[in-house]
Amino acid sequence: MPRDPRWDILFEPVKIGPVTAPNRFYQVPHASGMTNVLPQVRAAFREVKAEGGWGVVCTGAVSIHPSSDDSPLPAARLWDEHDVRAHALMTEAVHRHGSLAGVELWHGGAATMNRSSRIPPLSPSGVGWMSTHVGFMSNQRARAMNQDDIKAFLGWYRDAAIRAKRAGFDIVYVYAGMGYLLHEFLLPAYNRREDAYGGSVKNRTRLIREALETVKEAVGDTCGVALRISLDELRQRPGTELATEAHEVVAELGDLPDLWDVKLDSSPTDCGSSRFRPEGSHEPVIDFVKSLTSRPVVGVGRFTSPDAMVSQIRRGVLDLIGAARPSIADPFLPRKLDEGREDEIRECIGCNICISSWHDGVPVRCTQNPTIGEEWRRGWHPERYERAGSADRVLVVGAGPAGLDCALTLARRGYEVAIADKAHRAGGRILDEAELPGLNAWRRVLDYRLGALVKLPNAQLYLDSELGADEVLGFGAERVVIATGCDWVPAAYDARMETPGELFQGPGVFTPQDVFAGRPIQGPVAVFDYDNYYMGGCIAERLAAQGLDVTYVTPAGFASAWTIMNNEQPNVHMNLARLGVELITRRSVAAYMPGLLVTEDIFTRAQAELPCASLVVVGHRRPRSALYDALVARKGEWAEAGVRSVDRIGDAAAPGALVHAVYSGHLYARTLDAPAEALPYRIDNGLPAPAVAAE
Amino acid sequence: MPRDPRWDILFEPVKIGPVTAPNRFYQVPHASGMTNVLPQVRAAFREVKAEGGWGVVCTGAVSIHPSSDDSPLPAARLWDEHDVRAHALMTEAVHRHGSLAGVELWHGGAATMNRSSRIPPLSPSGVGWMSTHVGFMSNQRARAMNQDDIKAFLGWYRDAAIRAKRAGFDIVYVYAGMGYLLHEFLLPAYNRREDAYGGSVKNRTRLIREALETVKEAVGDTCGVALRISLDELRQRPGTELATEAHEVVAELGDLPDLWDVKLDSSPTDCGSSRFRPEGSHEPVIDFVKSLTSRPVVGVGRFTSPDAMVSQIRRGVLDLIGAARPSIADPFLPRKLDEGREDEIRECIGCNICISSWHDGVPVRCTQNPTIGEEWRRGWHPERYERAGSADRVLVVGAGPAGLDCALTLARRGYEVAIADKAHRAGGRILDEAELPGLNAWRRVLDYRLGALVKLPNAQLYLDSELGADEVLGFGAERVVIATGCDWVPAAYDARMETPGELFQGPGVFTPQDVFAGRPIQGPVAVFDYDNYYMGGCIAERLAAQGLDVTYVTPAGFASAWTIMNNEQPNVHMNLARLGVELITRRSVAAYMPGLLVTEDIFTRAQAELPCASLVVVGHRRPRSALYDALVARKGEWAEAGVRSVDRIGDAAAPGALVHAVYSGHLYARTLDAPAEALPYRIDNGLPAPAVAAE
Repeated sequence: MPRDPRWDILFEPVKIGPVTAPNRFYQVPHASGMTNVLPQVRAAFREVKAEGGWGVVCTGAVSIHPSSDDSPLPAARLWDEHDVRAHALMTEAVHRHGSLAGVELWHGGAATMNRSSRIPPLSPSGVGWMSTHVGFMSNQRARAMNQDDIKAFLGWYRDAAIRAKRAGFDIVYVYAGMGYLLHEFLLPAYNRREDAYGGSVKNRTRLIREALETVKEAVGDTCGVALRISLDELRQRPGTELATEAHEVVAELGDLPDLWDVKLDSSPTDCGSSRFRPEGSHEPVIDFVKSLTSRPVVGVGRFTSPDAMVSQIRRGVLDLIGAARPSIADPFLPRKLDEGREDEIRECIGCNICISSWHDGVPVRCTQNPTIGEEWRRGWHPERYERAGSADRVLVVGAGPAGLDCALTLARRGYEVAIADKAHRAGGRILDEAELPGLNAWRRVLDYRLGALVKLPNAQLYLDSELGADEVLGFGAERVVIATGCDWVPAAYDARMETPGELFQGPGVFTPQDVFAGRPIQGPVAVFDYDNYYMGGCIAERLAAQGLDVTYVTPAGFASAWTIMNNEQPNVHMNLARLGVELITRRSVAAYMPGLLVTEDIFTRAQAELPCASLVVVGHRRPRSALYDALVARKGEWAEAGVRSVDRIGDAAAPGALVHAVYSGHLYARTLDAPAEALPYRIDNGLPAPAVAAE
Repeated sequence: MPRDPRWDILFEPVKIGPVTAPNRFYQVPHASGMTNVLPQVRAAFREVKAEGGWGVVCTGAVSIHPSSDDSPLPAARLWDEHDVRAHALMTEAVHRHGSLAGVELWHGGAATMNRSSRIPPLSPSGVGWMSTHVGFMSNQRARAMNQDDIKAFLGWYRDAAIRAKRAGFDIVYVYAGMGYLLHEFLLPAYNRREDAYGGSVKNRTRLIREALETVKEAVGDTCGVALRISLDELRQRPGTELATEAHEVVAELGDLPDLWDVKLDSSPTDCGSSRFRPEGSHEPVIDFVKSLTSRPVVGVGRFTSPDAMVSQIRRGVLDLIGAARPSIADPFLPRKLDEGREDEIRECIGCNICISSWHDGVPVRCTQNPTIGEEWRRGWHPERYERAGSADRVLVVGAGPAGLDCALTLARRGYEVAIADKAHRAGGRILDEAELPGLNAWRRVLDYRLGALVKLPNAQLYLDSELGADEVLGFGAERVVIATGCDWVPAAYDARMETPGELFQGPGVFTPQDVFAGRPIQGPVAVFDYDNYYMGGCIAERLAAQGLDVTYVTPAGFASAWTIMNNEQPNVHMNLARLGVELITRRSVAAYMPGLLVTEDIFTRAQAELPCASLVVVGHRRPRSALYDALVARKGEWAEAGVRSVDRIGDAAAPGALVHAVYSGHLYARTLDAPAEALPYRIDNGLPAPAVAAE
């Protein structure tokens, strides 16, 4: 189909200094978690975005010197010629598709702990970042930079820029955001200097100016020089000449950078999940930038709607549509718009599993797009599929996230697929979970798959169809896939072994499924959460919103403790407090009887009692295995029934988050009839050996 | 000097199946944090231990298959031929010194989250490890192994053992400890199976037996096959035929392994810090093993005393003296005993910075031994030093940990060194901190350095010597090193920026230095800790032990939150509870006036009041820079005074833990007069290219 002319403006070229972006789709720098250790994985990950139509494809943060060492968090680097070769794999891959390659040169200052390089972190004034999250803590504090350090820093930027140019990058960044070194110079909380680099906005901006001038002089003849800057805190500080300090900084630098890439101050504010932040939420902070520079401006906002993108451009907020998350969920977003296939876009659900991957210190993952990060390792392409390896028919039992992705992917490969679910609607757990406070966007996991599946003639969906072993064996499918999900079980928590314990029994004991089913729950209610992700917090919110008196108990140190990883934790705490939920942390539930809850300190075992009419346990999950077990028990009948295999996927094999369910279904579908290999995927052992002349 | 004949027994060879350890010093498997990504760093790290006399040198855990993937925690692997070559660097290095090389083949089961491999963790019964620490959390739960999985698992062990033999290892481990897969089969909390692998001790031991048989069949002809096993929990479970289940397991396997390597169940119990556990604390759990097997037994206990080692052997507890931490603190411990130089041993202080490195996900570090991990990267050897690069005389101001290590190392290089301290005793912060509850062993940092320094004729120590700029410039040294330490300052905490804020003022406000100085502190007292390591917890303990009513306030989720990294956290909480210290977490101190403390929720800003006569703030530290600043202000006079450089080291540059202070001093001393390089150290980019025939 032809492109909708309303989107034409998105496909206009944009000049960035000496280079020109072929369109307005700009994959801003974002973490991949792949680092220079996996250069082939990384190049393939970035390449698929260029192939999908992103006019500019950038790296994540690239360290310019060992004094910016974020380990164990993954970070790339450009320290020497080996690193030049590692990055050249990526620039060549991006250039193959006519896109520009950008590199975010980065010094972390006091925000990197230099745990591997063992160099004291650099900072404007010896003020360190003192996070409350153990993963970001260090015992080594920051050193205040002197004049020699500043000179050295500018030299590192220059040398890294020259290496970047040699690696083939078209756009080179100076990075002054997210609490990293140049941003620390802007912020009075970090910058307490009394020399030419401290005090006034002009002084605090000085080092950014010098870095921009240094990089422009080094590579500005052939590379666009971009400035990435965080403006959140500065926008909240009144200016002396303009409205805010943010305005003053932008006015001060004006047209010096070839491109302004503007963002918020920290991962939680810049990259909020859909549970707490809508699409386009950056606009109130960054809307003024274009009024103070004639250079193009790029910004993000988790844009998946072309209407919102066009609106940002027409209203003069942005020139380039920046994206990180939407480009991960669908690397082919621009191409689909270009080809009039916007209904095929796999929209980002804003769950922030991608950013959690980086906080976890591993390569990026995505709930919507199971192929991300697997382009090189498993040879998966988000839009292309291996043809079916046999004429086997496949029966998938269960139309939740695992079953749906499995069936869709099998059907795309050309298999005849039937998917059956006992419920009246497809979706499984998504139907329940998308009803939880803030999680409505998760429904996109279902919408995308169901929408695509119904168009395929070789897939059949059977609802209201509960299948037993007899029905499965009589179905006529050679392959059976069990995707029946799992049950939450009200197991206690053994704080000594850190494992689920005995089941709580009796009336007044509930699980999340009881809440979904609308079973009547009386207050006061305790939500006991040792699952530690969203479920416990969401259940507590929902019950409190119903007017119940709710206490949230967890052996962890925070509510929904793991959500520090996906940037939700501050909002979880604020929501629970707003709803009057009392928090009890570092305690387990030792005993429960109707009316009384006994909690126990996880360290000292000291007990305390709490009046409690109901207990909701959010902890252990157990696969629903009745059908699988029945089929395994009748393995002797498989051959006669024509059944070649029975496998479990998703929560029915190993309970997990949505991302695991989708991946599990996808993996089954991608590998059906594939030849057996010694290892499940290719191992990236670093730079491939250079081609030898004799070859 | 000749060896003390009392230690002769330690130097007897011990047969381990088909191989023979040349002595009883056995570096048990322990994490290096280096992984296959840094194979040259790793080989050099292990080599120095063989050179230092350890008869056996083992790897850390080596994954046998991608379903045992501990990322982001560092782990080695033996998955393919590339990995064989990576490990061969280490075995060749160990063999160069006549020692045996051991490999700990490992499958993590439900304890590895498989965040990179994306394979659902394997487990006996679908029971996962559900830690309260965010760093060990995952949203992917474990899958229960079926018969096919068990068969595959044994195949992975066989194949990995064959690769291990090809890589040159002499001892191959089956690993059934620390909550990893085979240990999970032993533990009823994880193993709820009803088949031949669950229920009785014999059944729960079955898979270990099968793994041992598999590995023996594969490589037992030329390799010793060791079993590493955790016996803590099993020792607490009554047996049906023998005293405990631990006894039954050992009796069941008897002489099947060529070596028993016995340990406790978890990192905090097996590897406790000296603050809470004395040397030799494993004995009550493992003392019986030798009575049930004729095979040699190795175990650990942070042994640094040869008397304790000999006693363990003579009393029939152990045959081989296992060590991890003492071999890091002094890789030359055996050689020094052998050569009658036991007074030169650098004794482990049990601070557990080494184990925290692994929990942090980075290469191992050591407070006592700054050269560890730097053998390849910086070319540092723990016992050899580059000769002085000039005839410069060096004045070190400050005889704390940084100054002492700097002076000692400079003197060993041959420089003329003077070290001056204004105090009456050398040691700086160590003198105060070793007086804190449990930290007495930290004094070894001082004892080792002072003991070595006084023997060197080219080093002079001046006590009671406070030097001003005049004295320094008139001293006659070409090099001046400022090691004046830092001050704790009573700064508030800005929870929004996560930085230190304004100073608390007025009477009743104290810092740790006030506590050390014995200033009178009235109760009730609040200890406000956003430093999050040992200091806040120790100060609270000390004040409570004095009988004061103490409340501990922190914005983190646990007391001394970072101590989860060095295995102290459970004990910190137990001690504080025992002393009646009340904990207030996730709150900052918003305001203080004598009599009243106002705390504030870090998320909601909700305030609460607390009666409080004194406030001790453990947060920000500021370098003592008066002398340095005065010297920099008089830079014009340096040349005339003959001063070529003035530098800061340790806390005077960037406040840190002891490990950072020692390293900083060492780094200055090692690099003085070294030629300038583009990068501060060599980068290990993986396996070196194989030598080409044309070379």
